[in-house]
Amino acid sequence: MRVLALLDGTLADPDSPQIRVDDLGLLRGDGVFETILVVDGKPRELTPHLDRLDRSAAMLDMPTPDRAAFERAIELVIGNWTGAREIALKLVQTRGIEGGDGTPTGFALGMEISPKVLQQRAEGLAAVTLDRGVEPGLADRAPWLLLGAKTLGYTINMAALREAERRGAAEVIFTTSNGSVLEGPTSTAVLVRGRTLVTPPSQLGILPGTTQAALFRAAERAGWTTVVEPIPVEDLYTADGLFLVSSVRTVTRVHTLDGKQLPDSTALLPELRGLYESEY
Amino acid sequence: MRVLALLDGTLADPDSPQIRVDDLGLLRGDGVFETILVVDGKPRELTPHLDRLDRSAAMLDMPTPDRAAFERAIELVIGNWTGAREIALKLVQTRGIEGGDGTPTGFALGMEISPKVLQQRAEGLAAVTLDRGVEPGLADRAPWLLLGAKTLGYTINMAALREAERRGAAEVIFTTSNGSVLEGPTSTAVLVRGRTLVTPPSQLGILPGTTQAALFRAAERAGWTTVVEPIPVEDLYTADGLFLVSSVRTVTRVHTLDGKQLPDSTALLPELRGLYESEY
Repeated sequence: MRVLALLDGTLADPDSPQIRVDDLGLLRGDGVFETILVVDGKPRELTPHLDRLDRSAAMLDMPTPDRAAFERAIELVIGNWTGAREIALKLVQTRGIEGGDGTPTGFALGMEISPKVLQQRAEGLAAVTLDRGVEPGLADRAPWLLLGAKTLGYTINMAALREAERRGAAEVIFTTSNGSVLEGPTSTAVLVRGRTLVTPPSQLGILPGTTQAALFRAAERAGWTTVVEPIPVEDLYTADGLFLVSSVRTVTRVHTLDGKQLPDSTALLPELRGLYESEY
Repeated sequence: MRVLALLDGTLADPDSPQIRVDDLGLLRGDGVFETILVVDGKPRELTPHLDRLDRSAAMLDMPTPDRAAFERAIELVIGNWTGAREIALKLVQTRGIEGGDGTPTGFALGMEISPKVLQQRAEGLAAVTLDRGVEPGLADRAPWLLLGAKTLGYTINMAALREAERRGAAEVIFTTSNGSVLEGPTSTAVLVRGRTLVTPPSQLGILPGTTQAALFRAAERAGWTTVVEPIPVEDLYTADGLFLVSSVRTVTRVHTLDGKQLPDSTALLPELRGLYESEY
């Protein structure tokens, strides 16, 4: 099922057209989004998601999203949801109509978690590394490349996932051209070494992860060490565990990388997921 | 005015919503497009545009666009156009609905040429160079980056144009990280040296230009030399002329680059535009 709420506080039919063909979100990928996990009617990391939506909008020189209107739309979706206990809730703001008055288009769309994601949460997945074609320092040097903004222009991310499928895998870990770990197309990479969690710095031009932040918060409280530092690709093979984390996938184990089986991290999965769940 | 035709051979109202919120073209920038110039009811470079739409779709592993349906939609837009003698005609194909049956969404949308473009055609424009963050060889090495595909994910291109505005210019010439000329966000760069036209090779990961190809064809017939080779940024300052060419802007002169006035190429403009027009 899908539930759609508009920013004017009304519900709309997601199976009927709601967007004009000349919306810049469609014609140019000119817009920003967030995907929030809602469990039993409660949105997780709502403020970090809304903050990041603001940040992405600012990176695109767009009007700051109307937070009250988005919050009302979120409530409306949740209040009208009659499906499973989890919702993948997308918030979207585009630059509006081409040649229009600059009023953004915005909506909140509740969708079911796909069976594929549910299976991956349970069974883990195979990933491949793919060159993202960026070098360290590029994000700072060339802010117009929007590295680290969550935009509607996810064309490359989707192409990378298709490339992974061609290689018999389900997910991607992007790397810099010189072999430093970046992120997944829709997730953050987290490495486990002993009682330490490691993730790459967002300064590399990657999205600061809301789920990664929640996991690290919980881990620190539970006595783990957390480190934010560049990760050479080689380290992925020798770590105790490699995980992709995101709102919708929560914590998902990577069992195979570039066709090679990684050290068995089966036992770590419930532990990390327990940490994550302890936040809610 | 705007005229919208759908692939089923019907006209639709461009001022009313036609696209669902869960269309992957909107949610992911997952789609391809072309913009064709129509003059006095005649589309220019129609076959090259349709061929390039096919090529972009193939790079995105999308179904080949239904050429007959697009041609019918184009005729419908042109037949119902009552505006100025020029139309900017956009063809769009998206991957369709998220979780749907894979049927692409497609349409043809006729729009007016913006007053800004008309002014730039007449008066020329100031451009800035911006690092596109790619190095030579990347396009071949990492096809999932879709360099040279004309996708709906033009978010970066739009951000670059805003950066140009911030710097007091109207256009951008993207460069590789090591200072080789690539292209404009929506145009091809063409350099004039004596009786020679030069443009960078598409192997660098840039879009093969339909207007550039038409101009070069005409120039060759008129006895000019045409060269496709890498262009160091420094060469832009010493050339006899620098032009941005595209369907909608046709041939537009760059008079200022990164705040520095370029050698006066005013006399070259009518000559190049004459070559281009001789094709039609």
